[in-house]
Parts: sequence; structure tokens; C-alpha cells
Amino acid sequence: MKTATLALLLGLAGAAQAQGPANLMQYAHPLVGTAKMGHTFPGATVPFGMVQLSPDTDTLSYATPEGKYNPEVYRYCAGYQYDDPTIVGFSHTHFSGTGHSDLGDFLVMPTVGPLRLNPGTAARPGSGYRSRYSHKTEVAEPAYYRVKLEDPGVLAELTATARVGVHRYTFPQAADAHIVLDLMAGIYNYPGKNVWTFVRVENDSLVTGYRQTNGWGRTRTEYFALQFSKPFAHYGSRNYDQKEPYRGFWGRFDQVHDWPDLAGHQLRLHFDFATKAGEQVLLKMALSSTSTAGALRNLRAEAPGWDFDALRRQGQALWQQELGKVEIQGAKVDKDNFYTAMYHACLTPTIYQDVDGQYRGLDQNNHQAEGFTNYTTFSLWDTFRALHPLFNLIQPKRNADMVQSMLAHYDQSAEHMLPVWSHYANENWCMSGYHSVSVLADAVLTGTVPAAQAERALAACVATARHRWYDGLGDYLDRGYVPDGRSGTSVSTTLEYALDDWCIAQLAQKLGHADLYQEFSKRANNWQNVYDARIGYMRPRAADGAFRAKFDVLSTNGQGFIEGNAWNYSLAVPQDPAGLIAKMGGNARFVPHLDSLFTMNLPDKFFAETEDITRDGIIGNYVHGNEPAHHVAYLYDWTNQPWKTQARVRMILPKMYHPTPDGLGGNDDCGQMSAWYIFSALGFYPVAPASGEYALGSPAVQGATLRLENGKTFTVTVKNQGPKNVYVQSARLNGKLLTRPFIPVAEVMRGGELAFVMGARPMRK
Amino acid sequence: MKTATLALLLGLAGAAQAQGPANLMQYAHPLVGTAKMGHTFPGATVPFGMVQLSPDTDTLSYATPEGKYNPEVYRYCAGYQYDDPTIVGFSHTHFSGTGHSDLGDFLVMPTVGPLRLNPGTAARPGSGYRSRYSHKTEVAEPAYYRVKLEDPGVLAELTATARVGVHRYTFPQAADAHIVLDLMAGIYNYPGKNVWTFVRVENDSLVTGYRQTNGWGRTRTEYFALQFSKPFAHYGSRNYDQKEPYRGFWGRFDQVHDWPDLAGHQLRLHFDFATKAGEQVLLKMALSSTSTAGALRNLRAEAPGWDFDALRRQGQALWQQELGKVEIQGAKVDKDNFYTAMYHACLTPTIYQDVDGQYRGLDQNNHQAEGFTNYTTFSLWDTFRALHPLFNLIQPKRNADMVQSMLAHYDQSAEHMLPVWSHYANENWCMSGYHSVSVLADAVLTGTVPAAQAERALAACVATARHRWYDGLGDYLDRGYVPDGRSGTSVSTTLEYALDDWCIAQLAQKLGHADLYQEFSKRANNWQNVYDARIGYMRPRAADGAFRAKFDVLSTNGQGFIEGNAWNYSLAVPQDPAGLIAKMGGNARFVPHLDSLFTMNLPDKFFAETEDITRDGIIGNYVHGNEPAHHVAYLYDWTNQPWKTQARVRMILPKMYHPTPDGLGGNDDCGQMSAWYIFSALGFYPVAPASGEYALGSPAVQGATLRLENGKTFTVTVKNQGPKNVYVQSARLNGKLLTRPFIPVAEVMRGGELAFVMGARPMRK
Repeated sequence: MKTATLALLLGLAGAAQAQGPANLMQYAHPLVGTAKMGHTFPGATVPFGMVQLSPDTDTLSYATPEGKYNPEVYRYCAGYQYDDPTIVGFSHTHFSGTGHSDLGDFLVMPTVGPLRLNPGTAARPGSGYRSRYSHKTEVAEPAYYRVKLEDPGVLAELTATARVGVHRYTFPQAADAHIVLDLMAGIYNYPGKNVWTFVRVENDSLVTGYRQTNGWGRTRTEYFALQFSKPFAHYGSRNYDQKEPYRGFWGRFDQVHDWPDLAGHQLRLHFDFATKAGEQVLLKMALSSTSTAGALRNLRAEAPGWDFDALRRQGQALWQQELGKVEIQGAKVDKDNFYTAMYHACLTPTIYQDVDGQYRGLDQNNHQAEGFTNYTTFSLWDTFRALHPLFNLIQPKRNADMVQSMLAHYDQSAEHMLPVWSHYANENWCMSGYHSVSVLADAVLTGTVPAAQAERALAACVATARHRWYDGLGDYLDRGYVPDGRSGTSVSTTLEYALDDWCIAQLAQKLGHADLYQEFSKRANNWQNVYDARIGYMRPRAADGAFRAKFDVLSTNGQGFIEGNAWNYSLAVPQDPAGLIAKMGGNARFVPHLDSLFTMNLPDKFFAETEDITRDGIIGNYVHGNEPAHHVAYLYDWTNQPWKTQARVRMILPKMYHPTPDGLGGNDDCGQMSAWYIFSALGFYPVAPASGEYALGSPAVQGATLRLENGKTFTVTVKNQGPKNVYVQSARLNGKLLTRPFIPVAEVMRGGELAFVMGARPMRK
Repeated sequence: MKTATLALLLGLAGAAQAQGPANLMQYAHPLVGTAKMGHTFPGATVPFGMVQLSPDTDTLSYATPEGKYNPEVYRYCAGYQYDDPTIVGFSHTHFSGTGHSDLGDFLVMPTVGPLRLNPGTAARPGSGYRSRYSHKTEVAEPAYYRVKLEDPGVLAELTATARVGVHRYTFPQAADAHIVLDLMAGIYNYPGKNVWTFVRVENDSLVTGYRQTNGWGRTRTEYFALQFSKPFAHYGSRNYDQKEPYRGFWGRFDQVHDWPDLAGHQLRLHFDFATKAGEQVLLKMALSSTSTAGALRNLRAEAPGWDFDALRRQGQALWQQELGKVEIQGAKVDKDNFYTAMYHACLTPTIYQDVDGQYRGLDQNNHQAEGFTNYTTFSLWDTFRALHPLFNLIQPKRNADMVQSMLAHYDQSAEHMLPVWSHYANENWCMSGYHSVSVLADAVLTGTVPAAQAERALAACVATARHRWYDGLGDYLDRGYVPDGRSGTSVSTTLEYALDDWCIAQLAQKLGHADLYQEFSKRANNWQNVYDARIGYMRPRAADGAFRAKFDVLSTNGQGFIEGNAWNYSLAVPQDPAGLIAKMGGNARFVPHLDSLFTMNLPDKFFAETEDITRDGIIGNYVHGNEPAHHVAYLYDWTNQPWKTQARVRMILPKMYHPTPDGLGGNDDCGQMSAWYIFSALGFYPVAPASGEYALGSPAVQGATLRLENGKTFTVTVKNQGPKNVYVQSARLNGKLLTRPFIPVAEVMRGGELAFVMGARPMRK
């Protein structure tokens, strides 16, 4: 990983000093997580930007013709795998850290020599338009990516604004240089994925169009405007569709070469040039969710000129600003981990509107965002846990806009529901629960969402939680739990509903709705209905009340839990750890039980049947790579042995996070994994968003300053920090000694100081 | 054909008296042309309305899986064939009189009993959801259609506003009544025709969505909003797509019954009710080219209530107003023909914008129409001849808006061309020439288009006529003709370009551009380059100048002409009949030649190889069913035997037009055939639009009054009219005796009187 050049450092120095700390981008490494299961992308983007311009090392991972899932496709959720030897091209939209695939719109690739319009395969070097490359020439920094494409001999550089991907290609001398625009390509393609593609060559340097897909986003359309710095001499296209019945009429003139009006399912275009040695050709690709007219407006507003370096500097200044919201002191490896996590925590959700506020709504109409910036890609099952609480603390304006975006989704929803897992004007219903209510409740309770919107938020939460048709919710309302057989994830779903209902209860109480508070408080206790006291685990329960007979507390397969097992999920009552502990027999039983979670050895079959997880992502039976466990290490704070939280957290941090391409133990999940790191490294964690409290852990930093949007700062000071000094000897909040390992969120948001004194021995009370 | 009821007559009486003549709708018969090749539709529409709500008697005429053209599909260009025994359903968009198929969006059908979601086939009575019916119960009037659907026992009534189709279904007593909404159906379906369909059930009486197709309109999207007068008890859907990879997630809840969010290629929906005997259920289906939000606006603006009869009266009042623009006296059969022709001449082009002026442009962006109403469906190869000249006379405001629409198309065109054959935001390039320039020139020269737009119009015409890549135009510019081999229709294309160029020359001259006038006047003479004086016919000519050796002047197949033969096309120099006559050896040779056109007997092979034409559409070798011949009968006016024009026209009128379902001798061609009738029945015809002159013929009416938009009237008076009195004894324009059989268009547009005296013997000079 190259650090920024001295010139860049100097260039940023002025801005950096105004912002706060010295250049932090040197510690933010986009390549982290691009190998194995991190599923991050290394390319160029700005904080929460609409464009993620990034290399794809393979894209055409088809499902089988019968529509069966091709497991290989899983590796390419972000389009790039570090160990792949070739780059297919650079596309403009990528998820960060998901377990499902979509996007990869508008793949561009420079080539030289005889035109090849197919991508070739990695197994046959030099085939198709893809190119071999070496990591030795690769640079990946926030808002800048560079690599030498060996086959055409082209140096590729990428940067981005919020809505425009900017490419700079340095060509060799070539009579026949090309830019390929492959509109067949995408992430997770299969027959039928491309619903329609439409392209207009407006003149000899401007191309517009759109790509419409049916995939994880069921009805998704992305529009583009592509501008070239140099007019192309010729262009052509090929339509790989079957013959369309009306083609005959269009045979009266050439519709392959220099024909500006193209449409079909499977289009590839090429733009042809002659280049001198070292000649640079730049491209600007603007996106829009609403129209090509919108894409053109975005292009003109954000990238009116051709100064690549200025746009890069502008993007990197934005990153410096975001990263600088938290300044830490620590060892280099800790800074590398911390700022890489900060980087990954500032990618999603993404801005989803044109410069004029127009966006594509869930009803497929274009809407005007009034008084907020509209966002998309809400991976809520993951992000409600720590990412949105982190936004609430260091990105409250954005979090408020995200809440508005979710309320707009609700308004437009034909089902009258808040988002579950939504992206690009689609609800894809992924995972379970209705965790949007946690985000809303947390935001309202902390004052991030203005009072004027609070009732509207509560109404949306209540309506969402009362839809009997949704995933066993009717049964849950009738019985107090989702019966086994009604759903394959009946236990985890019950637990998630109970947690979400508790959030709604807090919100109702805050707004003075006693009746709703009663209703949802009662529902919040429903976790007790799936707790089998005889064995001390959560367990699937039939409609008649009987727990399932044949049950394996280690297996993640078919035991009634989504992405987890009974061991981890039986701890999933973050709204009431004290109640859970009591139910499990008090500290005397609970603490050893929790201990063994971290120390047991798992059988091999566990790994064979569990997606998203490798041995690296597990400590004992604690599965850090999957979110249901994320609060678990902090549960000791509710027992009489809180020092064990400190030990566990300080063990997890270096084990699960490494500043290397394979350094993430599981999918980054749109920033949730990174948010876990950030909070935990600072020494506190939002076990129960909407509770108004952080649970304390053990800071890994030597110190930290949070620059809050209200102009205040919150400082974490750490005395006697060290690799062995994982135990908190004392903690003071604004000078007052803490007697329990919790701090109020409101206090942190007001600014102040949290002072830790560390040591090598636990403070047993 | 039922006439309007007395009640309706009385109901309209008040409006009718204010408008002018007594109820004219009794003479307008939408069923005319619905058998054989007229290709008209019988359903409900308002003048130039966006909605054509009409029964389809078959729709699923697939191409073969290899994409080969299925000739059966040709019969269903308008969705309805009079002799078919069943109605499949009622869809909302239809062409009138075309030779190609598209549209048929949003098929609705009421059914009773066990639900059937497939349409069944006509060959198996009682199969599927289609229904048998009898013409005995069928009523087709302007803006009103009625029929008894025998299988479900439902009386179906249809009316329309400009943008909303209104249905009234009278049900029997039924526990299980349904409304089927078949979004797979359309006119000329084949695998891949449906690109995407999207539906939202907004509540228990409102459904919105869109249908996107790839057909004759390559990228066409139509949006709808459908409202029910009575909430449906349940609804359901079926998706006939192959399994989509991400369906698994959506299995967590029922997405077939009462699930409001649907998308796919092949959707059918049903809405379920219980009905009492005689209960009426109404539907309002609003369309939009821009969005479902636009469709909802259109719905609320045009049809806010449920008073079917009021909407019907409103639609019929609009028809009375249109038909009343020309009041004729004559025999009933002549009125039936005349007002049916007036009806068919007021259907196309269609309004193509929302109530707020938004429309989908050629670039697939939504645009705002400023200062004009936007229209679509420009079948220009047909309609430039008489339909637009008719608009220019009795619909000048609409014609001016159509010109603006065409100029907007030009502005948005990636090829920078005026429309050739365009519909629904697509250029489909059908037929040949660039006859838009005729429409523009005629409109500017007659003052219909304001001076401020004239230069813009000229620039668009000139740019269009200089595109070297278009259909042999490059060769035409270089050589003065399109070479044989360059195009299969090289001769007719050359003649068409010459005519179009002449129009541009007139326009240039009017605006004072001497250079352009010279340039295009020279081009206007290019017809001479394909005239083979040795044989006296137009003939394909090779690039080296040699005429094609093997050549058949009767054959319509592969001789270098589009939809015609050398016999008819060699007369296609309407811009210079005198020059043509001279070239052909003067009157002495020309007149007998023209005589024989009308009297010769054609061999059978002619009919076998000629599309669009039956023996009924031909007189001798004169092919009235195809437009290139439309001016031919008037050519005698340029000879010394103009009385032959009079005889021919009076022969063609009753032979080619009958007020019966099979009464049209060929496709109505979006109103061109009807416009021919209207002009000819009045006694004059625009042989060369943009010439500023009408050629006189022989009126079939006993008298006529044209109520012009400028408040003036133009009266045609006829003395001694009679079936044998076909010859004009004298003609006076505003009292002045005409010495040549031509009248200036400007004089007619100013208002005045054209007085014919008829007789049984020709006036030989």
C-alpha cells in the first residue's frame, strides 16, 4: 500500500491544518478487504458518493440457465478479488462488503490493437479486452486508484466526484486505440438480468443512455452521460440480441458503424482513436437515477472541466475532512485499521439524487427531495447495530437525511413499510426484522431528527410493526412468537421483532404515547417466549407451544436462526441483558456460559455449512463475521465481571482486523464491521441503540478527539496504554468517576472527556 | 350500424344547435373498415385522443420463435377484425389503418365464474377469458362502444376522454366476478416484446404501473393509473416469467394474493368481486407517456367522477364539434361516407402529453411542451399527401402544433432529422422519403406556422435533406438519383426525394433564401434522371447510368418501387405534372396512357405479390389502396381533358368507399384514405402540397360549408348535382369564372364560395 506522495501531503497541508490533523489518508487503505470475504472495492469514490468507480476482475458470473445460484458469483459482490490476475474493466457502481450482488454498471476499458469486444477469460491470458496487471503498479487511495494495464500498455487512473467517475488513460502510441463500453457487463449477470439498454451518441464526444436491470434490485434503472476529452474518430456497436422482428426496416442504412441511436438487451460499444505515445484521454461518466438529462446536469455541475488532478485533490480533501472527524493517537497499525475502518464506514448509504434534488422513488416516479439529501442502499439488518449509531454521533446531519430518506421510502411504499433492505428505488426484502425502527428511534431520542418529524417517524414505525402479512408477524402478534414451521428463521425473527419493538416503545415513551409504550413494551418481552429454560437456549417453538425436539445448538443450518446458531443468538437480547442474565440463572451461570462461547472448539461441519464465515472470522464459537454477535463481547458489562468485556474486545480487535487485503474476517457489510472497530477502538459501543447508553469496553487507541458537528469535541484520553494493558483501572466522564461501565450517549454528543486509566490486571470489584 | 338514440339526439340538441348542423354523429361509423384491410378500430376515442379504448378480437399473433414474420399478424394492426367471433378484451391504444402493428396496451376483460387467466382461443368457444359476442348487440359510435359479452353475461360499454378510457360493465348476479388485467397482451406480441411491466396496487380501488415494449416502437413505455368504482374484495397475480434468481427472498410472504408490488415480463392480474344482478362496475384507465404520477394527474383532471353518461356526452360533443367543421348536403350514403371519413381523419396524430404539458421525448427524457400541444404517430409517407393539407384547412391550430411536435422531434433526434415515421417517442424509419418537409413547407407557406418558427422549420428541412447516410441520399446528392442496387426502392425513393426537395425549394423561396432555392430546385428535377424515355416509364438506373435491363412495369415486386409499380409511380411527379407530361410526349401521348391506367386488366400474379391491396382496391391498374396513386386521377387537370379527372374521381368515390365494415379498399393509413375522400367529395384536392393550389375535381356533395378557425366560412355550392352529372359545366370562385381547374389555397382559407354547375356531358374546350 503506497502512502500519499510528499507533494500530495504538501498540497493538502494547508487544507489539513484548517481541518485538524495531518494527512490521515495515508492510513486509509481501500485494498483492505478485497481478498477473501471482505467484499470491499478498491476504486475511487468520495464519502457516501453515488459513484464508486472501481476495477472489476470478473463480472460475468452467470447463474445456471435454470436460474440456480452459482456459488462462484458470491466472491464478486464488489466486482474485485485481490488474487485475480486480470482486470476486465472499470465500472461505476459497487456495493461495499455485501453478501449479495448487483450494480457494476457501465463497464469501461481502454484497449489497443485489433478490436475485441468480448471480455475474454482470466484463464486465457491476453484473451478478449481484459488486461493482465500487477499489484506492484497498483495504487488505491481514497478517491484515487491507479494501475498499469499490461496488455494494452495503458496507465489507468481513476478519481470521482459524488456523481461523476473520472478516468485518465495514458496511452502508448497506437493507430488503433479503443475505449470499450460494455453494457452487457454487470455484477452477477445472468440471462434476463439486462432488461433494456438505451444509448445515444449525441456528438463525437458525448454519449448518454441508461441500463435497466432485473436482479437483486428488481426494477432498477441507472442513467449515464459520458464525455470524452478528445473526439473519437469513429465508433461502433454490436447488438448481441437475437434478431428483432423489425430489424428489416433499419437495414436501409448502416446501424453498426457511427450510428447514434442504439437500444437492446445486449449492447457493446467501442470508440476509436489514434494516440501518440504518452497521450492522455480522459473520460467523465456522470450517473443519475432519474434521466439522462439529470446525468448531464450532474456532469456539468460537478465536473465541468478536465483537470483530473484538481478533481482528485477535491475528492481527497473531502476524505481528509471525513476522516478528520475523529483524530486518534496510536501505533501505526492501529491507525491503519482505524482509518481504513473510518473509510469503509463512510461509503454507504450512498447519495441518491441529482444535483437538483430529483431522485427515482420506490414508486418508480421521479421525486424532489425537499429539505433533505436522499440516500439509498440501506443494509439495515447490519447497519442498525453500530453504523447508524456512529453516524448519529459523528455524521448527525447525514443520519437525519438518511432518516428522511427512509420516511420517503415509507411514504412511497405500496406496502406502507419502512425499508428492510433497500437499494436504488427497490425494496429487496433481504434478511429479517424491521430494524429501520431502531435507526429512527435512536435518531429521534438523541435529537438528530427534529421534533417536527418525530411523530411522523413514530407513525411509520408503528404501521410497519403491525403488518400481519410480513414474515410471521401476524403469528408473532397473536402468540408472542413466530412459530416453528411458519418461518425457517422463527427464533431469530422473534428476537429481532422483540428488539425492534423495544425501540418503538422507547420512541413512543419519548413522545408521550403511553398506550403505544405499553403495547410495544409488552412485545419487547417476547424474547422470553422462545427461551427454553430447560436447556438455557433460544429454541424453535411450534404453534402449540412445544419446543422443537431435535435441536442442535451449534448448527447454523435449519435450526431457526438466520446466519447464526443458538449459541450466538441466545445472547441476542441487547435491549435487556439484565433480564436475559436473570433468566439464565444469574451471573453464576451466565458468566461461564459466555466464557465458553469464546473458548470452545467448533467441529468442522460448522464451517462447511456456514456462509460468509471462515475460521479466521471466529473465536471459539464467537462469530465476529456475522452481526448478531457484535454486541456479545460487551455483555460482561451487565455481569459482575466487566473486565472480561475489556479482554475480549482487545482480543477481537487485532484478530479480526488487519490492514491487509485479506484482513477482514467477513463481509464488511456496508460499514457495520468497520463501525464495530471504530467504537471498540475508542472504548465504547452502542449495545442497544435507542437505549441512550454506550457500554464501555477497552480502548485500543492512545487517545482520540471526536470533532462533533455541533462544534464541540469529545476527547478520549488513555493513560498507561499498551498491548498488555487491556484492563480499565478507572474511567472518568467529564471528571466524574464511573461506577458502572456505561456512559450516556447524550453526554458524548454534548462534548467532553472520557478518561481511561489502563493496566495489565483486571479491576475486580 | 345503430344510429344515435333519440334521447341522445335530444341531449345533444342544445349543443348541436350552438355548433351548427344537426347531429352529425349518426353518419360517422367507426365499424367501417374493421373488416378486411381497412384496419380501423371500432372503439371509443375523442378527436386526436391519446386513448383508443377498443375491443381486440385477437392479439396474440406471435412471430415464429426464429423471429420470422407471421403473416396472420397483419390482420390485427388495429386489434379487431369484424368477422371474428370472440372478443379477447378491451385495450387502450390502437393505430387506425396502419399496415404495421404495435400498441394494444393494458387489456381489460370482465369475467364471471371460475377464474381463467389465459385468453383462450377463438377456435375453442368458451375457452379462456375471452367471450363470444354478436354484432346484433354491438354499437359503435364516436366516443361510445357497446357490446354484450355472452360468455360472462356482461354488458360492456366504453367511452373516453383524451387521456382516460372509461368502462362500464353491467354484471349478472355472481359470487365470483372478475376483472382481468392482462399485461402480457398486446398487438403483435412475440417473445421479448414485453421488455418490462411494473404494477402497484395502491389501495383497494387504485392500480398504477407501466408497460415497456420493444417492437415497432423500439423503446416504448406507457404508464397507467386504473381506478375502480367499487373496491375489489381480493386481487391476485401470476408471473409467467421463468424463475428469477432472487425469488427466494420473497418467499417469506405471499406474493401472489393481495400483494401490491409486482414486476416482470409476463404479468396477469385479476380483481375479484361479488356482484348483484344488474350491478355496474366502472373502470377508469388513464394513460401517460411520462410517469404513473402523470397518469394520476390525467385521471384526476379529466375524469374525476363516475358519471359515465356525462363523459360519453362530453366525448360526443367533441365529435359533433369536429364533424361540424364541414357541413355537407347530400344523399345519406354520401353523408355516411363523408362523416365516417371525417371521423377517421380526426384520429391521428394523437395527443401525446399529460395535462400539464409533460411528454416523453425521443431522447427518452421527459420534456415540457411550451406553447404547443405535443402529438405523436406521424405516418408521414401517407399523410403528407392529403391529411395534413386537410388539417391545414380545417384544423390549422392542430396542424401548427403537429409542426411544433415535429420540430421538437428534430431537436431531440440524435440523427438531427425530422420524423420519417414516428410514434410514442420512437423513430421507426418506416417507408421512405422525408415527407415531413412537405408538411412543414405547406404549413409555413399558408401561414399556419407563425413567421417566428419559419426559419427554424427551414433549417430542420435542409439539415434533414442533407444526411448522406440516409437511405441512398448520399448517392442521390452525388448523382441526382439513387442507383439501382443501392436500395431496393431506388426509383420511388428518387421520386420522393425530388418531390420533398421541391417543397423545400418553395419554403426557401418564401423566406428569401435564394441560394437554397437554387439548390433544392435543381434537386427537385431529379425525377428526370430515372425517367427512361425509350419506354416512357420511371426505371431503376445503375450507378454507371444504365437502366436496368430486365424490368416489368406491372410488377410490384423488386422493380425499384415501394408499394407500387412503374405504371403508378411513373406518374408520381406531383410537383411538376406539366413537365412530366411534356417529357412523356405531351397530351397526345399522356392522355391515352393515363386512360389505360384505369382500364387495363391486371394479371393474377399482381395480386399475389402485392400486400395491402385486394381486387376491390384497384380500378384497372389504378391502385387506390396505396398512396402513391392518390393524386393520379387529378392529373388530367394538367392536360387538355380535365373532364376525365371529374369522371374518374366520381367513379373512385363510390367504388372505394362504402359505409360497411369491409367498405375500405385498403388500409385507412391513419386518415389519408379518408382525407382523399373528404377533399374529393368537396370537389378539390391538394395534388402538390406547398404549391399553394388545389386541383379541381368533381364534387360528390350537393353542397358544403366549411367553418374555418378564423371565423370565416368557405362554401361549396353545386347546381344540378346527380349521379350521372359528374362533369363540371362551370366553376366560379367568389363569383369569378375559373378558366383553369385550379384554385388558390389561400383563397379557400380566407373564406368564400366555390360554385359548381354540373352536367351529364363533359365540357370539352
